[in-house]
This record gives sequence, structure tokens and C-alpha cells, in this order.
Amino acid sequence: MSLALDPAAQDLLFREARTANTFTDEPVTDEQMRAIYDLVKYGPTAFNQCPLRITLVRSPEARERLLPHLSEGNRAKTASAPLVAILSADNEFHEELPALLPHFPQAKDLFFAERPVRENSAALNAALQAGYFIVGVRAAGLAAGPMTGFDHEGVRKEFLDDDHTPLMIVNIGRPGPDAWFPRSPRLEYEQVVSEV
Amino acid sequence: MSLALDPAAQDLLFREARTANTFTDEPVTDEQMRAIYDLVKYGPTAFNQCPLRITLVRSPEARERLLPHLSEGNRAKTASAPLVAILSADNEFHEELPALLPHFPQAKDLFFAERPVRENSAALNAALQAGYFIVGVRAAGLAAGPMTGFDHEGVRKEFLDDDHTPLMIVNIGRPGPDAWFPRSPRLEYEQVVSEV
Repeated sequence: MSLALDPAAQDLLFREARTANTFTDEPVTDEQMRAIYDLVKYGPTAFNQCPLRITLVRSPEARERLLPHLSEGNRAKTASAPLVAILSADNEFHEELPALLPHFPQAKDLFFAERPVRENSAALNAALQAGYFIVGVRAAGLAAGPMTGFDHEGVRKEFLDDDHTPLMIVNIGRPGPDAWFPRSPRLEYEQVVSEV
Repeated sequence: MSLALDPAAQDLLFREARTANTFTDEPVTDEQMRAIYDLVKYGPTAFNQCPLRITLVRSPEARERLLPHLSEGNRAKTASAPLVAILSADNEFHEELPALLPHFPQAKDLFFAERPVRENSAALNAALQAGYFIVGVRAAGLAAGPMTGFDHEGVRKEFLDDDHTPLMIVNIGRPGPDAWFPRSPRLEYEQVVSEV
């Protein structure tokens, strides 16, 4: 009741949205992916570094290359998803900083000259953007199924390069039959929020 | 046009929402914080681990303890925010897992017996939840101002403990005069999304 966001949108993005484990075969189009990106790209990151990169796996051939790297329990759902997104952090994001932060182009060299600093910053900010992306998939009326159970180094070698660190894999599509388990409980407010 | 989320909600959460640098003195209430948490708690995490913890800094005394740990450029905006939230990852989240994942209580010992594994998982999933939280602050009609420019170890020692790793600090309130810079550019779809 204290929220400005209307209840239907609350349901769509959080209350009714669930991590889907099965999908229909209705395709997820490039137009939908563009609409999702055009929304969530505005989410804030430190120094506007925007380190998230998205690698789409759609064709049967690409899918076959991905499945062996997943935990066994994750293979069937990824095999059934019409679109799969590998989310990664670009550890060389600083190359784009002069364009992304035109009022402070020195940030590239002042703060991000060292690779370990970039890796830490990219990991945090790309995960933050992954949160926006999952909300964005739901904003498109689609179900997202994020997973971290996969051979990260195997996926990096198969689909990415030394400059990209995989964060998670997200199955995307319309939920199919028996798409979810009962909702698991969440922590109470007092277990999460405190005041000093 | 491909999104199910209505355009007013798109504007509220992403298109018109901005990182505020000044705030009015209108208080942010506990009721608002509870409404935000009750919405964003549903966002998915791996094994439903829910590792994000939120430490609210509101009183003048608590504020005085926080300001010296911030980068100089961040002090004025945090001093002007009616509420400040320190977001951290709970590296001992596994203690709650049997309650959070009642259908698979063995996960606590099977996957999270080792602290470094927990730290990695908590860092990723708490950052993901930080993304949901920023969206939730905006859903309440408030502006969020996330910052990573602070002495993380200093903030940990002042407000947290050895089991919590600070991720970011978020200023929360109604935007004040000249609250934001012009919006910085974002990457094009083709710079972020590729298909294999």
C-alpha cells in the first residue's frame, strides 16, 4: 500500500513471477530481447560502467554445445527453453568508459588501470545488472530461470574469451506444464533489515 | 512495444528513474521500507539463499559515524539523504538454508560447508538482490543513489561484523533540487548482446 508501482506490475515482476523449470515452444524473438535491453539498460552501475554482456544460445547446434557444461539437474530445463542467455562480466569494460562517462573520461585510467580492480568492479556491477535483466525478462511477460549450476570455466572456454567471466545462465520463455515448485519461504523483515 | 509492463511502470522503474545526488528532507518511513522489502524479497536467488542484508542509517549520530568512511565526493549527498542503506552479503547465509529450502535441507552441508564457497555465492546473489532492491526503492516512488566509493573495510568494522561483506551504500529519498546530471549514454544492443 506504500508503493507507487501499481499492483498488476508488482505481480508481474515479483509477486506472481516465478523461476520456471519447463517452457512451451513459443519462440522468444529478437524484438522481445531488444525491448528488454532497451528497458533495463537504464539501470544504474558504478561509473556507468555497464559491464554485463549477454550471449544468446538459440540454435540446436549451440544448445548441444552448452548442455554438457550444465549440472545434470539443469539440463532438461535448458533443453526445453526457447532461448538461453549466458550472462557474463566484461573485465575490459573500461575500454568503453570514455564513451559511457563523457563528463569524466579520466576514470578509465584513474580507477580502472589494473585488471584485478576491473574484475572486482565488473563482477559486482554485472550481477547488479543481472538483477535488472531478470526483472526485464518478466516485464516482457516471460519467465526467467536463472542458474549458477554449471562448469563456469567450461562455458567460458566454449562461448566466451579470457576477458569475460560467466555469472549465470538464464532460461527464457513462456512457462510450460508444471513449471514451478511451490514457492519457498523468504526471510522475515527483521532477519534482513536492521537499523543502527 | 513488446513489453507486458505498462509504460508508466517502465518510466517509474527505469526510463525516468535516475540516481539522485540531492534529496528533500521528507522522511522515508519504516512502512515504506517494509513495503519495499515485501515486494523485492520474492526475487530469485540460487538455492533461495537470500544473502542480502540491509543496515539502515538514519539518526544524526549514525550518520556521523558513516560519513568519514565515504569518498569525499559522496559525503554531501549521503548527508542530505533522509535514509541511507548499507547493503551487505551475509557469508553465513547457510544457517538459514534449512528454513529457506525446506525440500532440500541437505544443500547447507552438501554445497555450502566451506566459507570461500559461501563468500563467492553470497557476493553474486546479494548483488543480484541489490538490483531488485534498487528497483524496489523506485517502485515506492523514491529515488535511489547507489555508491561503491567508500572504505569497505572501515564500514564493515564500524557497522557490521566479520561475517558480512559490504557491497554498496544506497541513499534513499525524494529527489531535491538539481538532483541529477544529464543521463549518460548506454551501450548499443549490438555491443552487449550477441548470439552464438
